[in-house]
Amino acid sequence: MKLLVMNGPNLNRLGKREPTIYGRESLQDIENSLLEIAKEHAIQLSFFQSNTEGFLIDRIHEAADEGIDGIIFNPGAYTHYSIALRDAIASVGIDVIEVHISNIHNRESFRQESVIAPVCIGQLTGFGTDGYSLALHAFLLRQKGE
Amino acid sequence: MKLLVMNGPNLNRLGKREPTIYGRESLQDIENSLLEIAKEHAIQLSFFQSNTEGFLIDRIHEAADEGIDGIIFNPGAYTHYSIALRDAIASVGIDVIEVHISNIHNRESFRQESVIAPVCIGQLTGFGTDGYSLALHAFLLRQKGE
Amino acid sequence: MKLLVMNGPNLNRLGKREPTIYGRESLQDIENSLLEIAKEHAIQLSFFQSNTEGFLIDRIHEAADEGIDGIIFNPGAYTHYSIALRDAIASVGIDVIEVHISNIHNRESFRQESVIAPVCIGQLTGFGTDGYSLALHAFLLRQKGE
Amino acid sequence: MKLLVMNGPNLNRLGKREPTIYGRESLQDIENSLLEIAKEHAIQLSFFQSNTEGFLIDRIHEAADEGIDGIIFNPGAYTHYSIALRDAIASVGIDVIEVHISNIHNRESFRQESVIAPVCIGQLTGFGTDGYSLALHAFLLRQKGE
Amino acid sequence: MKLLVMNGPNLNRLGKREPTIYGRESLQDIENSLLEIAKEHAIQLSFFQSNTEGFLIDRIHEAADEGIDGIIFNPGAYTHYSIALRDAIASVGIDVIEVHISNIHNRESFRQESVIAPVCIGQLTGFGTDGYSLALHAFLLRQKGE
Amino acid sequence: MKLLVMNGPNLNRLGKREPTIYGRESLQDIENSLLEIAKEHAIQLSFFQSNTEGFLIDRIHEAADEGIDGIIFNPGAYTHYSIALRDAIASVGIDVIEVHISNIHNRESFRQESVIAPVCIGQLTGFGTDGYSLALHAFLLRQKGE
Amino acid sequence: MKLLVMNGPNLNRLGKREPTIYGRESLQDIENSLLEIAKEHAIQLSFFQSNTEGFLIDRIHEAADEGIDGIIFNPGAYTHYSIALRDAIASVGIDVIEVHISNIHNRESFRQESVIAPVCIGQLTGFGTDGYSLALHAFLLRQKGE
Amino acid sequence: MKLLVMNGPNLNRLGKREPTIYGRESLQDIENSLLEIAKEHAIQLSFFQSNTEGFLIDRIHEAADEGIDGIIFNPGAYTHYSIALRDAIASVGIDVIEVHISNIHNRESFRQESVIAPVCIGQLTGFGTDGYSLALHAFLLRQKGE
Amino acid sequence: MKLLVMNGPNLNRLGKREPTIYGRESLQDIENSLLEIAKEHAIQLSFFQSNTEGFLIDRIHEAADEGIDGIIFNPGAYTHYSIALRDAIASVGIDVIEVHISNIHNRESFRQESVIAPVCIGQLTGFGTDGYSLALHAFLLRQKGE
Amino acid sequence: MKLLVMNGPNLNRLGKREPTIYGRESLQDIENSLLEIAKEHAIQLSFFQSNTEGFLIDRIHEAADEGIDGIIFNPGAYTHYSIALRDAIASVGIDVIEVHISNIHNRESFRQESVIAPVCIGQLTGFGTDGYSLALHAFLLRQKGE
Amino acid sequence: MKLLVMNGPNLNRLGKREPTIYGRESLQDIENSLLEIAKEHAIQLSFFQSNTEGFLIDRIHEAADEGIDGIIFNPGAYTHYSIALRDAIASVGIDVIEVHISNIHNRESFRQESVIAPVCIGQLTGFGTDGYSLALHAFLLRQKGE
Amino acid sequence: MKLLVMNGPNLNRLGKREPTIYGRESLQDIENSLLEIAKEHAIQLSFFQSNTEGFLIDRIHEAADEGIDGIIFNPGAYTHYSIALRDAIASVGIDVIEVHISNIHNRESFRQESVIAPVCIGQLTGFGTDGYSLALHAFLLRQKGE
Repeated sequence: MKLLVMNGPNLNRLGKREPTIYGRESLQDIENSLLEIAKEHAIQLSFFQSNTEGFLIDRIHEAADEGIDGIIFNPGAYTHYSIALRDAIASVGIDVIEVHISNIHNRESFRQESVIAPVCIGQLTGFGTDGYSLALHAFLLRQKGE
Repeated sequence: MKLLVMNGPNLNRLGKREPTIYGRESLQDIENSLLEIAKEHAIQLSFFQSNTEGFLIDRIHEAADEGIDGIIFNPGAYTHYSIALRDAIASVGIDVIEVHISNIHNRESFRQESVIAPVCIGQLTGFGTDGYSLALHAFLLRQKGE
Repeated sequence: MKLLVMNGPNLNRLGKREPTIYGRESLQDIENSLLEIAKEHAIQLSFFQSNTEGFLIDRIHEAADEGIDGIIFNPGAYTHYSIALRDAIASVGIDVIEVHISNIHNRESFRQESVIAPVCIGQLTGFGTDGYSLALHAFLLRQKGE
Repeated sequence: MKLLVMNGPNLNRLGKREPTIYGRESLQDIENSLLEIAKEHAIQLSFFQSNTEGFLIDRIHEAADEGIDGIIFNPGAYTHYSIALRDAIASVGIDVIEVHISNIHNRESFRQESVIAPVCIGQLTGFGTDGYSLALHAFLLRQKGE
Repeated sequence: MKLLVMNGPNLNRLGKREPTIYGRESLQDIENSLLEIAKEHAIQLSFFQSNTEGFLIDRIHEAADEGIDGIIFNPGAYTHYSIALRDAIASVGIDVIEVHISNIHNRESFRQESVIAPVCIGQLTGFGTDGYSLALHAFLLRQKGE
Repeated sequence: MKLLVMNGPNLNRLGKREPTIYGRESLQDIENSLLEIAKEHAIQLSFFQSNTEGFLIDRIHEAADEGIDGIIFNPGAYTHYSIALRDAIASVGIDVIEVHISNIHNRESFRQESVIAPVCIGQLTGFGTDGYSLALHAFLLRQKGE
Repeated sequence: MKLLVMNGPNLNRLGKREPTIYGRESLQDIENSLLEIAKEHAIQLSFFQSNTEGFLIDRIHEAADEGIDGIIFNPGAYTHYSIALRDAIASVGIDVIEVHISNIHNRESFRQESVIAPVCIGQLTGFGTDGYSLALHAFLLRQKGE
Repeated sequence: MKLLVMNGPNLNRLGKREPTIYGRESLQDIENSLLEIAKEHAIQLSFFQSNTEGFLIDRIHEAADEGIDGIIFNPGAYTHYSIALRDAIASVGIDVIEVHISNIHNRESFRQESVIAPVCIGQLTGFGTDGYSLALHAFLLRQKGE
Repeated sequence: MKLLVMNGPNLNRLGKREPTIYGRESLQDIENSLLEIAKEHAIQLSFFQSNTEGFLIDRIHEAADEGIDGIIFNPGAYTHYSIALRDAIASVGIDVIEVHISNIHNRESFRQESVIAPVCIGQLTGFGTDGYSLALHAFLLRQKGE
Repeated sequence: MKLLVMNGPNLNRLGKREPTIYGRESLQDIENSLLEIAKEHAIQLSFFQSNTEGFLIDRIHEAADEGIDGIIFNPGAYTHYSIALRDAIASVGIDVIEVHISNIHNRESFRQESVIAPVCIGQLTGFGTDGYSLALHAFLLRQKGE
Repeated sequence: MKLLVMNGPNLNRLGKREPTIYGRESLQDIENSLLEIAKEHAIQLSFFQSNTEGFLIDRIHEAADEGIDGIIFNPGAYTHYSIALRDAIASVGIDVIEVHISNIHNRESFRQESVIAPVCIGQLTGFGTDGYSLALHAFLLRQKGE
Repeated sequence: MKLLVMNGPNLNRLGKREPTIYGRESLQDIENSLLEIAKEHAIQLSFFQSNTEGFLIDRIHEAADEGIDGIIFNPGAYTHYSIALRDAIASVGIDVIEVHISNIHNRESFRQESVIAPVCIGQLTGFGTDGYSLALHAFLLRQKGE
C-alpha cells in the first residue's frame, strides 16, 4: 500500500504554532512516528506540505499518476473554503481521509464546515497529532476489510 | 482503563438497517470485535444501547459513579438535536469520543451538525464499523501519551 | 393487511386537549371508529400511543418483526424535530402515512416543517379526526392499486 | 353537494409527464374515476384545468357565484408562489382541499412550502392519483360530521 | 392629464371579499367616485382590472402607446412576486403610484415586501378605498409642482 | 379636528439636506403650506420636530393629554429601529399616518422596513413634500367617511 | 394551593455538575428549602425529576388529574427544543413558571431560545438556586392578586 | 442596601397604556408598594423613569458615583436594541436585574431578544407588576446568600 | 432540426425598452437575423412571445406535440420565480437553452437566480441580442457532436 | 483647519470603564494630548461628548453652521444601530473619521457592523486611545494631499 | 484580435476527470479545435492553465501588458470564491467571457454562485466543451457588432 | 524597530488599477514615501507583494524567523476569505495592522467582512494611500506607549 501524507497551510509551523491548540510536536516528529508504523506494515509513505492551494492540487494530480492508494490529508484552513481542493480529490480516484489536530467543533463556528469532507472516506478531528496514526490505522483496517 | 461503548437510537438495528449506508455487521458483531481488542490491552469494556434519550443520559450519569474512564459514543440521530445529551456529557468529567458509521458530511445537510461534538474529545466519521475500534485505539494512544 | 395506528405525545389527551384545535373525540373514540372500518375490510389493526420518543422507536422496530404492512402515524410534536423517529421509519421497510388532526399550515411556523414526512408515503393534514380513517382508506386504495 | 375539481399548470400532461413521479394515469382517467364515485354519493362534479394563474382565479370566483360547496384543488407549481390564488380562495367562502400527487416532502426543498395550504381545510400529499378520490372521501366524511 | 386606474387579482371582488380587511365598497363604487373627482379637474380616466398577470402587463404596454401620463395601480397579490409587472413598468416611461387598501404592514410578513414599489413614484397603504382618490390627488399635486 | 405634525431626526435640515433626495423646501415651507390648507378646513394644527427619540415619545404622550385627534408623523431614521416610538403610539389611542418624503423602496435595503408602520393607520412614501398635505387630505377623507 | 416542582434532564446532578455555572446546592437541598417556605404558607408541594422527555410529559398530564394549581418547571436542555413539552403544558390548564438557574442570556446562543416560555406565565433566569423560591413567591403574589 | 428602580420608555404611562397587556396599576402604585417592602427590610430605594435613552445612561453612571448596590431595571422597548444601555451597565460595576411586566416570549418575535440581559444578573418576565417586588426579593435573597 | 424561439414578458418591447440595458434591436430584428442563419443550415424556425405565463406553458406543451427538437428560451422576469414554466420544460422531453440579453450577474441580486436553468441544457447571459444566434449555434454544434 | 472631536455614549467613563478593553486614560487625558498636537499644527479643536443620540445629531448640525472642516467621531454603541446619526452626517457636508478604541473585529459579532462608516471618509479601529491622534494625523495628511 | 484562453484548477485533468460530468475531451483537444477556428478568422490565440489562483492573476495582469483583446476564462472552482480573480479582471480593461463545461445550475447549490461573472461580459454554462468555441464565436459577433 | 510592508493580490497594479477607487500612486511611490518616514525614525523596512496566497503565508512565516516586529498588511481581496492567512498571522507572534486604501464600508457588501482583522491589532480603512503611513505612525505611537 502506497500512502501520501499531505499537510496544508501553516502546518509547517506545528510545534511552534499556538501549542495549546496544536500541541508541541513538529511536523517532522509526526512524519517520523508514521514512518515507524509504516515500516511494521510494509506501507510505502511519502510526505508533502505546502502553503499554496495550487501546489496541493498539483500534488493530488501527481498522486494519481504515481498510483498512490490513499491520502492522509490535513487541509488546514483550506478545509473551510477550497472547493478547488475538493474538486481535485473528486477528479482523481484516490481514497482520502481528512485529519484535524484540534477539535474543530469547539472552536470558531467557521471551522465547523468542511467543504472537503464530502468527497473523502471519512474525517478524524480532535485527536491531536495521534490523528495521523489513527488515519494510517484506518487505512490498514480498510485494507483488511476488503 | 474502563470504557463504555454506548449506542443511541436505531443502532440496535445495525446489519438489518439500510445496509448500503450502515454495512452488514450487527451491533453484536461490533461488540465482539471490540471485546477481542480490549482483552489484548487489559481494557474493561461495558456496552449500552437505547432508543430513549433519557436512558442514555441516565447511563452517562451512572458511568460517572462507576468510575468509567472513557466513552465511545455513537449518538445516532440524537447527534443533531439532543442538547440534553450534550449537557449530560458536560455534567460528568468523562472523556467521550463521538463515532459515526457513515460519512455524515455527504448525506442530508442536517446530519452535518453535531450538538454533541463540542463537549467531546474528538469525532470520527465515515469509517464504517471500523470507527469503533479506531476510537478504542484512540483511547489507547491517548493513555500512552499522558 | 396488518396495520398499526401509532400516536405520539399528548395525543392521549385528545378530547380533553384544546378542543377548538383538536376536536372533542377521544383517542378511544377514534380507535373504535377505525376498528369498525377495519372489520368491514378484514384489516387487522393494532394501536400504540406513547409520550416517549424512544418507546415509539421501539414500537416501530417491533412492527418490522411482527410483519406489519403499514403504519398510520400521528407523531404529534415529534413531527418537527425527531430525526430519530425518521431514522426508525427508514430502518424498517414499512409504508407509513403521516396524519395530523389540525391544519399545521395555518398555525405557528415551526409546525409547518415535518422531518418525518420525507420517509413516509404521504401526509394528511387538517381533516380533524377523519384523518385517521382517510389514511386507512388510502391503504385500501393502495392495496387495490398494486 | 356540488364540488369542483380544479387542476393547475402542467396537470393536463398527466400520464405523459415524468411517469416515475406522477404515474401513468391521465387527467381524463382521474376525472372518470371521480365521476363514478360521485354518482354513488349523489355529488355533482365539475372540472377545470388551466395553465394560467389568472384563469384559475377567475374560476374560483365563478365557483362562488355557482354555489359550489367545495373545491378539490391541485395547484401544481403555483402551490409554491401564487399568493394571488391564496387570496382568491380567501376571498370566496368555499372549503378547499389541496391535493398533491407526489410526496412533495421528499423532492426539491422549494416544493415543501405551500402558500395556499394555510387558507385550505387540509392538504393531502403523496397518494398518487388516489389523492383525488381521498379528497372526495374527505368531503363526504366532513358532510356526515356536520 | 390622462390617467389609468389599474387593479390586479381579486380586486374585482371588492365589497364581497373579506369586508373587515377590504371594506364594503365595490370596485364600481370606487371608479364612480374617481370619475367625479376627475371631472372636476379635467382628468381623463380609464379603468382596467384583471386577474391575469400577463394581461396587466399587456395593458401597461398599451398605456405607453396611448400616451397615458400616470397609472394608479393596486397590483393585489402580484405586489409580492411579479417581477414581470415590475419590468413592465420599468419598460414604459409612465409614472406609477402603488395603492394598497389595507395596511400591509400589520398583516402577514410576506405582504410587507413589494417588488413593484422600487419602480414606482411612491406607495400609499392603509387608507382603505380612499387610497385611490389620494393617489389621484397626488398626481394633481405633482402636476402643479412641475 | 386637532392634528399634530411631527418630524423626527434631521428633518430640521430639509432644504439644506441632500436636495436630490429630499427636495428644496424647508420644514418651515411645509408647515406654512399645511397651515393654509388647515385654515380652509377648520383644522387646528400644531408642529413638533426633534432629533431626540425620547422627546418625540414625550410629545406623543402629551398629545394624548391634549386630545389630539391625529398625528402626521415622519419618523426619519427612527422609522427603522425605534420600537420605543412604536410603543409610544400604541400606548396612546391616536390615529397616526406615517409619511416619508423619498421613496424608501428604491434606496438602501435597511430603509424598507418600518417598525412603526404596523401601529399606524397607513403609510405614504415617495411623494416628496406633498406627502404631508396628502396625509392631511387623508385625515379629512377619513373624517368624512366616519 | 398545590404546586409541583418539576426538573428536567441533568438537574439530578446539581451540586456535582459544573458548579461554577450551576452552584453547589443539590436538588435535595433546594427541595428542602422550598418545603420550609411551603410550610409557612400552607402550600402543598410535590417534586419530580426525570431525564426522559416522555416521563416529564406523563407527569404534566397526571398533574392535571391531581388538581395541581401551578408548576415550577426547570426544563433543562429540553427548554430549547421540546415542542412536545410545550404542547403538554398547553394541553392541561395549569399555570407554569419556567425557571433557569444560570443566566441563559450570557451563554451559548442556542440557550437563549425557549420553545416552552410562550405557554408559561413567565420566566425567571439567572438567580441561581434562589430562582425556585422566587417562583414560589411569584405564585403567592399571584394568589394574593386574584 | 441601596437600590435604584429604573424604568424606560412608555412606562410612565402604565395603567393608562394597553391595560390587557400591562395591567391597571400606575408606576406610582408600583413605587408605593416597593417602598413598603423596602421599609421592612431597611432598603434605601430611589426611582427614575425616562423616555430618553441617553438620560437612562446618565442615571446609570450617576448610580455608580452614588454607591448604588443594585438596579431593578425595566428597559421597555430599549431592551431590544439599546447596545448603549448594555454598555452603560457593563461600564459600572452594579448588579442589575431586568424586569418585564408582560411575558415577552408570547408576543411579537422581536420582543424576545434582549441585548441587555447578557450583562445583567438575571431576567424576570411575565409576572405583571409583581415582577418589581420579585426583583426586590431576589436582591434580598442574594444579600442573604453572600 | 425544428427549433422554437420563445420570449417571455416585456420582450415584445425590445428596442423601445431601457435600451442601455437591452440594446436597440427589436424582437422583429432578432427574428429576421435568426431566420437568415436558419436558412443556411436548413433549420425550421418558429417564434412565440407572450406576457402570460400560462400561454408560454401552453406553447411548450404544443411544441412537444409538434416534434420540436429544441427551444431557445428567454423567459424574461419569469426566470426568477416561474416554477410552473420549469415544470412545463421538465414535462416535455425537449432540449432548452436559456438566453438572457443582459448580464444578469451584475444587476439586482434577485436576477441572479434562475429557477428554470436547472432543467435546461445550458444558459447564456450577457451577450446582448447576439445571445439568440449563439444559442442557435450551440444547437448546431450539439447536433454535429451527436 | 477647524476640527470637532465628538464622543458618544459611555465614553465619558473612559479610564473608569472596563480598562482591559478601553485602557486607563480618561477622555480629559485624550483631549489634552490632542490639544498639544493641534497647537503644533495650528488646528482649532472643539470637543463634545453626550450619551444622548439626539444631542449628538444636534451637534453635527451645529458643526455645519460653524464651518467645521472635519469631525473625529467615536460613536460608541450608536455605531451599530443609529441610522439617525448616519443621516445626520450625510445631511451636512463635513468629512468624518470614525474611531474605535478597541478592535471591534475580535469582540461580539454585533460590534462588527457599523451603520455609520459608509458615510465617513474612513474608519480606524483597535489602536487604543492613539486612535484619536492618528485620526488627527489623517486629517493633516489629507489637507497636505489636496 | 488577440485572445487568451485561460483555464483554472483541475481543468488540466479534462478527459480523465469525472467524464460523465466533464466529457471525454482533453484540454489539448479543446485547444486544437479552437486553433482551427482561430485560423479561419485570423484570431491570435494563446493558452494558459494553472491550479494556482495567484498565477492566474499574474497571467491576467500580463495579458493587459500584451494587449490581449479578450479572455475566454473557465475559472473552475475559483468561480465560487476567488474575489482576488474578480479584482484582477476589474483591474485590467479586458473583456472576459466566463465559460463552464457543466450546467452549474443543476449541481450542488454552492456551484450556482459566481463571484467572477459580475465583472465579465457574459457567462456560458452547460454546453460541454462546445462552450469554448461558442465563446470564441461570441467574441467574433461582438467584433462585428462594434 | 523592524517592519514588513506586505501587499496582497492586485496591489502591484496600483496606479493603473481603477484609479477612482484606488488613487493614482503606484506601489513604488508608496514604498518610497514610507522609506522616507522610516529613515527619520530609524525604522528598518522591508517590502513584499504577491498575488499568491501561499507565498504571502510563506513570507509571514519567514518574518517570524527574521525577528520582524510588526507587519503593515493590505491583504487585498484575500481579506474576505483567506482563513489560511488569518491562521498564518495567529501562528507567528507578530503585531499586524490591516490597511485598506478604499473605504470598504461603502462598497459591495462582501467587502465589509474581514476574516483577518480579528487576529490583527487594528484596522485602517478609507484613507487612500495615506493609510500605509498612518499605520507606520501607529507602530511609532505604540512603541512610545510601551
